[in-house]
Amino acid sequence: MSNSYGESFKITIFGQSHADAIGVVIEGIPAGVTLDTALIAQTMTRRAPGNAPYATARKEPDFPEIVSGVVNGVTCGAPLCAIIYNKDTKSKDYDALHTVPRPSHADFAAYVKYNGQYDHRGGGQFSGRMTAPLVFAGAVAMQLLREKGVTVGAHIAQIGAVKDDPFDPVSIDTTTLNALKNKPFCTLNDEAGANMQAAIAAAKSDGDSLGGVIECAALGLPVGVGDPMFSGIENEIARCVFAVPAVKGIEFGSGFAGATLRGSENNDPFSLKDGAIRTETNNHGGCLGGLSSGMPIVFRAAFKPTPSIAKPQHSVDLVTNEATILTIPGRHDPCVVPRAVPCIEAACAIALINLL
Amino acid sequence: MSNSYGESFKITIFGQSHADAIGVVIEGIPAGVTLDTALIAQTMTRRAPGNAPYATARKEPDFPEIVSGVVNGVTCGAPLCAIIYNKDTKSKDYDALHTVPRPSHADFAAYVKYNGQYDHRGGGQFSGRMTAPLVFAGAVAMQLLREKGVTVGAHIAQIGAVKDDPFDPVSIDTTTLNALKNKPFCTLNDEAGANMQAAIAAAKSDGDSLGGVIECAALGLPVGVGDPMFSGIENEIARCVFAVPAVKGIEFGSGFAGATLRGSENNDPFSLKDGAIRTETNNHGGCLGGLSSGMPIVFRAAFKPTPSIAKPQHSVDLVTNEATILTIPGRHDPCVVPRAVPCIEAACAIALINLL
Amino acid sequence: MSNSYGESFKITIFGQSHADAIGVVIEGIPAGVTLDTALIAQTMTRRAPGNAPYATARKEPDFPEIVSGVVNGVTCGAPLCAIIYNKDTKSKDYDALHTVPRPSHADFAAYVKYNGQYDHRGGGQFSGRMTAPLVFAGAVAMQLLREKGVTVGAHIAQIGAVKDDPFDPVSIDTTTLNALKNKPFCTLNDEAGANMQAAIAAAKSDGDSLGGVIECAALGLPVGVGDPMFSGIENEIARCVFAVPAVKGIEFGSGFAGATLRGSENNDPFSLKDGAIRTETNNHGGCLGGLSSGMPIVFRAAFKPTPSIAKPQHSVDLVTNEATILTIPGRHDPCVVPRAVPCIEAACAIALINLL
Amino acid sequence: MSNSYGESFKITIFGQSHADAIGVVIEGIPAGVTLDTALIAQTMTRRAPGNAPYATARKEPDFPEIVSGVVNGVTCGAPLCAIIYNKDTKSKDYDALHTVPRPSHADFAAYVKYNGQYDHRGGGQFSGRMTAPLVFAGAVAMQLLREKGVTVGAHIAQIGAVKDDPFDPVSIDTTTLNALKNKPFCTLNDEAGANMQAAIAAAKSDGDSLGGVIECAALGLPVGVGDPMFSGIENEIARCVFAVPAVKGIEFGSGFAGATLRGSENNDPFSLKDGAIRTETNNHGGCLGGLSSGMPIVFRAAFKPTPSIAKPQHSVDLVTNEATILTIPGRHDPCVVPRAVPCIEAACAIALINLL
Repeated sequence: MSNSYGESFKITIFGQSHADAIGVVIEGIPAGVTLDTALIAQTMTRRAPGNAPYATARKEPDFPEIVSGVVNGVTCGAPLCAIIYNKDTKSKDYDALHTVPRPSHADFAAYVKYNGQYDHRGGGQFSGRMTAPLVFAGAVAMQLLREKGVTVGAHIAQIGAVKDDPFDPVSIDTTTLNALKNKPFCTLNDEAGANMQAAIAAAKSDGDSLGGVIECAALGLPVGVGDPMFSGIENEIARCVFAVPAVKGIEFGSGFAGATLRGSENNDPFSLKDGAIRTETNNHGGCLGGLSSGMPIVFRAAFKPTPSIAKPQHSVDLVTNEATILTIPGRHDPCVVPRAVPCIEAACAIALINLL
Repeated sequence: MSNSYGESFKITIFGQSHADAIGVVIEGIPAGVTLDTALIAQTMTRRAPGNAPYATARKEPDFPEIVSGVVNGVTCGAPLCAIIYNKDTKSKDYDALHTVPRPSHADFAAYVKYNGQYDHRGGGQFSGRMTAPLVFAGAVAMQLLREKGVTVGAHIAQIGAVKDDPFDPVSIDTTTLNALKNKPFCTLNDEAGANMQAAIAAAKSDGDSLGGVIECAALGLPVGVGDPMFSGIENEIARCVFAVPAVKGIEFGSGFAGATLRGSENNDPFSLKDGAIRTETNNHGGCLGGLSSGMPIVFRAAFKPTPSIAKPQHSVDLVTNEATILTIPGRHDPCVVPRAVPCIEAACAIALINLL
Repeated sequence: MSNSYGESFKITIFGQSHADAIGVVIEGIPAGVTLDTALIAQTMTRRAPGNAPYATARKEPDFPEIVSGVVNGVTCGAPLCAIIYNKDTKSKDYDALHTVPRPSHADFAAYVKYNGQYDHRGGGQFSGRMTAPLVFAGAVAMQLLREKGVTVGAHIAQIGAVKDDPFDPVSIDTTTLNALKNKPFCTLNDEAGANMQAAIAAAKSDGDSLGGVIECAALGLPVGVGDPMFSGIENEIARCVFAVPAVKGIEFGSGFAGATLRGSENNDPFSLKDGAIRTETNNHGGCLGGLSSGMPIVFRAAFKPTPSIAKPQHSVDLVTNEATILTIPGRHDPCVVPRAVPCIEAACAIALINLL
Repeated sequence: MSNSYGESFKITIFGQSHADAIGVVIEGIPAGVTLDTALIAQTMTRRAPGNAPYATARKEPDFPEIVSGVVNGVTCGAPLCAIIYNKDTKSKDYDALHTVPRPSHADFAAYVKYNGQYDHRGGGQFSGRMTAPLVFAGAVAMQLLREKGVTVGAHIAQIGAVKDDPFDPVSIDTTTLNALKNKPFCTLNDEAGANMQAAIAAAKSDGDSLGGVIECAALGLPVGVGDPMFSGIENEIARCVFAVPAVKGIEFGSGFAGATLRGSENNDPFSLKDGAIRTETNNHGGCLGGLSSGMPIVFRAAFKPTPSIAKPQHSVDLVTNEATILTIPGRHDPCVVPRAVPCIEAACAIALINLL
């Protein structure tokens, strides 16, 4: 079923952008865990729209209501249900969109799939808003991973044509990953970050939008995590990352660039380092045969530019079956990539906690 | 569980490269289907090593033994089990490898994961040989898809630096996809194909290997196939494609290139064509919000170069814990990409038949 | 995961008896269904404690809050989340029970399983209260079944030693099943019902409790529903029925009594009736080889007597590890069987809608 | 999918009674386990027809061919596939049965479900023969359970009207359970066993058959195994036990008899025994709230009499749609209960190893 993921840490996400509420049920959290509400709040704030010029003006509450699974702040072994009631919804903005699908949005396919009964308001269950419960679950997963010595972190690797410095796939460390989480615009290189923000502002003032790339790393996984074939680390991370709206590609290690190399260039020789077996390079992105190699897991996710742009676009009225020109009202991010960083971290963390 | 995939068409793959047998159990094939043994044989032959200079010299039987689920060539509703007995195995080639892991292979992680009890012979359950039952299951899935009007086909898009012409993502047709299946080296552009083969031959003569990219398309899916979040078309295809050894990346539609564009460039406007709603471009690769849009599904998978190369490489002996130089014996493909084309088609077909 | 069930109609139940809320997420309801709120309300009322002398005095709200999946009363294809906020909880009643387990309750096992962090208040996630979301989901399933011509209904077959008339397994009809739902105490034979209520009252006045048997039937299933081996009708109904607290046994058709017969006595010969193939008797309870035969599905579920009784009982203090005498405070049903009738119907309906 | 069960120890059973082969794929066996082939052989022999007068005269090979997952007798972490090639099949015996369904067999429902393409030979995938791979998997599960200190064993509790002594649910021990496995006809009371065999012989000479009850116990489970709601011990054992053909009922502890008692009679008080918390009686059958209590798991499964009897029976020809008299040829067990003992043990063991 498409709204559930996982076996040992199983999440079931519900809600639509303009329903009464969105939320998530998490099964499999051990009893006796004192939830790290500061971590949860920080993580959710990083995803929240806030006041950044590249984010929607819609306001969202900071923290979900946890209605089950926790007694006096400590988990009790029962499923945890976290609910975020939707407020500040402007459903009227979407009335015109019900029958005129927005290019490169799910509207058209959803209209057909659900026989016109699709909740189109705010993008319904396809809205980026649905990543709020995903990020909540990801924060819980990250707390559990932290107790196992695993850290997940990401940065904005690219916005439009502007690139950040890449992670060093061999020596990236926990300090660097955690420091990124405290940055309002999380790039390794601040000048690149400033240029990215300028590019977003330029696109916005043109009534346009931008895409980008997020690079994510996971450190501290023991050797041999993951399973062959359909449940390798790459399979599971990919499956979760494609749940984040606007993701259109993923690559691990040297990825598409590695496909142009020879084996002698791309292979990562083993060597001893302080008595431990490590690879000298990390073109494999920490995964071999679906299993963790003990090196950092490194992957990149490609985001398409936000499809909701202010410019008029060609579309078709699904009722009259006539071509029409669509101008999208509402409040939209000119670039979702900055706010998507904790979403990608969450997707990665949820995949990994299930594999561990 | 990692060797199983799917719900309505569920496959469970078993075996190791040098075990007595490899095979697959398929649950969910409707009763009354006359298996298209010609299609199965053709598909398996395309994956088989054969005599091509870029393939291993190992011989494999052409067709599995179907021991259940079929009566007089017709399915009966019971699970189908197909077995391929392993012959022509040269396990001695692998004895030295048990404790000296090959760079960029699963050896090291598997050794640790399975406490040294890993069946290392021929790569064990991580061998490319395990794609034989995958391709068998894919051929059955393709027959079922064909009855629903869906065609899956792929070509070698790139080997090393040599590129084939890309699919036209709007107008690619069934005839083109099927014609590719009859080509011994399946590129759209024969000159590109010749150059690719030359590049492979050059790498081989250097004791080296090459990676590449396979582009795959699926035509004829109705609008609205797939589910939001974790079971969208992208999630499911990605999950299956990463089951093919050596895949390190996947992108749909404009993918990573699209991440550099503005929304006005990447969006695909809707228009009417012969009364049907279509998009004028197909940067979305046929998937929006995880659902099929009615346009061709188009994706690309990146393959790393074959890690088994003839050149000596640095490694570590897992028993003595000392650095050593490894020279890999055995028969290996200098480039797995040509033989992987039916594997990617199979992964795609298995994902889609489950979503339909 | 233990709080989820189903594939095509998947439910995930959350909450504890004295948590802020209990509820359920349902995935897989088709879009465009106008929820039958009258059916839901009637079904939930049948389970609610009300004022009957055999029920707890705890008050519960009648209807859950549906926070997602429904727009203007019509389903939209997104998961439906229904929440019941807990009120009228008297958690103090349970403080003493935390470390002194009640005989024949889950307390002891849960205390060990969850390292003492178990939410013991009101029985936590093991409480009969958790059947409220189950019954809600069951009512939705029953509406979907009704549209496919399937009716599920049950009666109190036995309380202590008092027996109701059994269903006629060949000719039981929809009218009879539906009429039972309007009865305040649902037996076929009113005199038996009166005697059962007298038996419950007698047990209550003795500070004691009673068990019983519920018989359930499902009509209108087409022939061939269910799957061989692990997903037959019996497997799936049994799996769901054992989710109802206090159930200790289930039998289909002639069940345990049939085990004492010879084949010639227990076999159900086929015959033609109005052109349709039917069996003359129905000792098989409508299931053969896990598949529906077209005859009524008939099964019985055995309930143990409510373990919470007013009489003092022997137990052990888990902290001091000393024997002690326990007297259970709180409000408890002297017999859960009358209120469990819609729970068994719900369990059956949820199993069947998944098989259809 | 109906032929698969389990998550951590997942089995997928394939084959039909008269297909080329039947077998099972087991995923999740840890690497490094030396298979106890003596245990496997003993267990399979107990199920095999042999020469007993109550068993079919069909001969079966004693031991499956293990084609993957094992290297030199030791598991390697890859899925284990075990195959039993079918020999001594007399499919002609079944030709007449294809269109005239046997009363109380799956024939009719399967014919409809699979559009007449059902493999009816020997009962196809509904045959008791399919328990051979189940028993194989059960023997492997029992070996893994043994390493965790858990023992599963069963006896014939009843054949027709003849009853064996019941297990003492408080003090039943491993020695007793294991001794039963060495008995050719496994009852606790040999006189009861002799009477049961006489009853079977009498039914056979009448061209008739008998049903019965098997009682099964599992010892050594730690407290707290199992999960609330849908994955409790009762749910999972019931789900597996109903996969054994002819089972029509299951009850745990005092079961249906307990439903007639008062709470004060059926409750099991806690007390200290040698410092451990135990219950003085075991009417709960070792399960409370779906969790193990530390007491022996005890359940009983009811088997209907073998439906294949020699006496002529009424049926309907599915092609001509006319009533007819059916006389069943072929070799059938007059009572399957004796051979089903290891099947019930296997079902229990497979459920428990997944819960541990």
